[in-house]
Amino acid sequence: MTVLQGTRPRVNAGRLVEQVAGLGAIGAVPGGGVTRLAFTPGDVEGRAYVARLMEEAALAVRIDAAGNLIGHRPGAVPGAPALVLGSHIDTVPDGGAYDGAYGVLAGVEVARTLHEEGVRLNHPLAVVAFCDEEGAHGTMGMLGSHGFAGVLPPGAARVLDDRGIPVADLLAAVGGDAERLAEAAWSPRDIAAYLELHIEQGAVLERLGVPIGVVETITGRVNVSVTVDGVAGHAGTTPMEHRADALDGAARLVLAVRAIAADERVVLRATTGTCAVEPGMWNVVPGRVRLGVEFRDTSAGALEAALARLAEAAAEVAGATGTRVTVVPGARTSPVDCDADLRELIARASAEQGLPYHRLPSGAGHDAQIVARIAPVGMIFVPSRDGVSHAPGEYTAPEHLAWGADVLLTAVLMRDATPDIKR
Amino acid sequence: MTVLQGTRPRVNAGRLVEQVAGLGAIGAVPGGGVTRLAFTPGDVEGRAYVARLMEEAALAVRIDAAGNLIGHRPGAVPGAPALVLGSHIDTVPDGGAYDGAYGVLAGVEVARTLHEEGVRLNHPLAVVAFCDEEGAHGTMGMLGSHGFAGVLPPGAARVLDDRGIPVADLLAAVGGDAERLAEAAWSPRDIAAYLELHIEQGAVLERLGVPIGVVETITGRVNVSVTVDGVAGHAGTTPMEHRADALDGAARLVLAVRAIAADERVVLRATTGTCAVEPGMWNVVPGRVRLGVEFRDTSAGALEAALARLAEAAAEVAGATGTRVTVVPGARTSPVDCDADLRELIARASAEQGLPYHRLPSGAGHDAQIVARIAPVGMIFVPSRDGVSHAPGEYTAPEHLAWGADVLLTAVLMRDATPDIKR
Repeated sequence: MTVLQGTRPRVNAGRLVEQVAGLGAIGAVPGGGVTRLAFTPGDVEGRAYVARLMEEAALAVRIDAAGNLIGHRPGAVPGAPALVLGSHIDTVPDGGAYDGAYGVLAGVEVARTLHEEGVRLNHPLAVVAFCDEEGAHGTMGMLGSHGFAGVLPPGAARVLDDRGIPVADLLAAVGGDAERLAEAAWSPRDIAAYLELHIEQGAVLERLGVPIGVVETITGRVNVSVTVDGVAGHAGTTPMEHRADALDGAARLVLAVRAIAADERVVLRATTGTCAVEPGMWNVVPGRVRLGVEFRDTSAGALEAALARLAEAAAEVAGATGTRVTVVPGARTSPVDCDADLRELIARASAEQGLPYHRLPSGAGHDAQIVARIAPVGMIFVPSRDGVSHAPGEYTAPEHLAWGADVLLTAVLMRDATPDIKR
Repeated sequence: MTVLQGTRPRVNAGRLVEQVAGLGAIGAVPGGGVTRLAFTPGDVEGRAYVARLMEEAALAVRIDAAGNLIGHRPGAVPGAPALVLGSHIDTVPDGGAYDGAYGVLAGVEVARTLHEEGVRLNHPLAVVAFCDEEGAHGTMGMLGSHGFAGVLPPGAARVLDDRGIPVADLLAAVGGDAERLAEAAWSPRDIAAYLELHIEQGAVLERLGVPIGVVETITGRVNVSVTVDGVAGHAGTTPMEHRADALDGAARLVLAVRAIAADERVVLRATTGTCAVEPGMWNVVPGRVRLGVEFRDTSAGALEAALARLAEAAAEVAGATGTRVTVVPGARTSPVDCDADLRELIARASAEQGLPYHRLPSGAGHDAQIVARIAPVGMIFVPSRDGVSHAPGEYTAPEHLAWGADVLLTAVLMRDATPDIKR
């Protein structure tokens, strides 16, 4: 691929790649993965690493009450709303070095390039490392971006993690303050645009051989608890025809869930990720099985249709297996459209850099979908090798890291030159 | 049903029913179940209860090196081999009051009735409560009967239970002695016949309305570990058509296992009792699933045919789902035929008591199948309400308890009057 040399400034690619590796070394575990769960000593060390880079980029560093690490650069126009670049640096257990971290480090690199090139923006620039995007130890996830957008559920700080530690104590460990959470909230008037650069975590761009993804929609998700109640029985003495085997019912539902997406195309993704059998002994016919199901789609209507289809399948399976099937929809995240103007802006920024781009939905959730409640958001994707993410094999090639950051920098400059619309 | 009054002595039905309740009170847990795992204080208390009853029945009580509690009554003919009545008094967690315990208490009641009626048998009589039939805390199960038959695997006493306690220490807690395990072994010359009275643990007798079961064969069993390896992936970013979902493969295999018995009739029972998903998170496509499968049949050939059929199904599923399926047969117990002469003896004893009987296989495993390696064995079943066993709902009606014990007593008297064949 031929990359055109534009007249815009470019990021220091070598420095960025080095910093991704440097942050990835914090929390590195045997096997190539990274375990840097939010609020842990690794997270604190990672945040200190990023804070130091922010200072080198001449950003004013602070931690807000929701534990977000924010680097700030003033703008030339008094009272102008900010351009906000953000993502997160916490990881899942045995995750990768790119998910989230790349977006934060690229944001800091954009600020540093602007500083080194002596570019003064009209708008203030803020680079944010959002707190606890991944939901460490059973916490809600996207905690920091909820606080940033002022949409934390009531009592969020009193919730206990799965070790029994209150979120308030976790926040305190990274410099947050549960008593002042309201102060972390930004107003829609404060933000001109939010841009998040992220690895795709899927293989679409790689398969197309395209280096830049322009995210159109962040998919919504609904979790569903499915419980199959049968009758536990002795595996030796209970004849096959007298059984009400909960795992028989559950297996049929696992296949039905998959078919709702794979065959019936009712919804984009349908996954059964957990299956717990009771009593769970080799010589006992299962009496109860609990399945953890989720559906994802860019359309809220498709999610509803998938739930309806699952309810039908549950009734069919219950009838066929003599079991009772209970379907309880749980946590739900609505699909979020990226801002139409920012999508075009990213497309133009890619084109100006001579980089092919592809418009696609995001299957994963991102802080951007929470920030979207108060600001126009745009997302830029770069390819993930083999589509692997949340795993040690997560990898994005150095040139893709550099090109993504260049598109982010270009988009910032283009947006800075665009008049703001009063919101 | 009309029960004929025979001329044979009868057991004290009220006393037996009372003792079943009395032993069931030891280890009783809320909800009606009994938790009296081998080697625990409840087991020790239960054994003391039975030892006291043995003494009241004029039996000489001892505990052998394998932890078996044995009550002994001398015979009239010097050097005659023994008639042995046995079962076990340990339970599974939250099990019932009848499984095993009934057979031991009925054996003691038979001895007591003989004593009270002044009947002197030609043969010595031994009543045995075998140690750890159920395999407490991950121990091998049928430990005591293996020791009794002299077929313990080498090093059995050094094995650790799932809490890390050596079997030798467990044995010591109930009066056994790992150093002298060989002394627990009986010789084929020592035993004329072994009879075990047990609840059916299935619903065949109840459905037929027949009070006595004559066991023809104790089914064999083979355990199979099935591992499905797919590729873990992000549930949002991995398109359905790029997935190699281990739970997709596992669900198909659960249905295939069931079909091998339920539809294809290759084997009597086929059960998948466990299903462990990795990583087991709602938002991750399963990368690995491990299934615990078992087949049971009265024919060793049928067990082999089921294994072959499972291997075929595994290959089909692997091909259809892009996963790798590994099938590893594990523990195997051969089917055991009850002794033909003892089967006829039990049938005649039932007929003499005016009790209808039905010939059936045992789907569950029993100490009898281990003792069969050194002695002719016979098994008598009584009905289980709704076929429930290993559960709080386990129940057998008082009249069935009494009739079963009467058939056992009658069978002992008939066998005692039969000449022994040199073995």
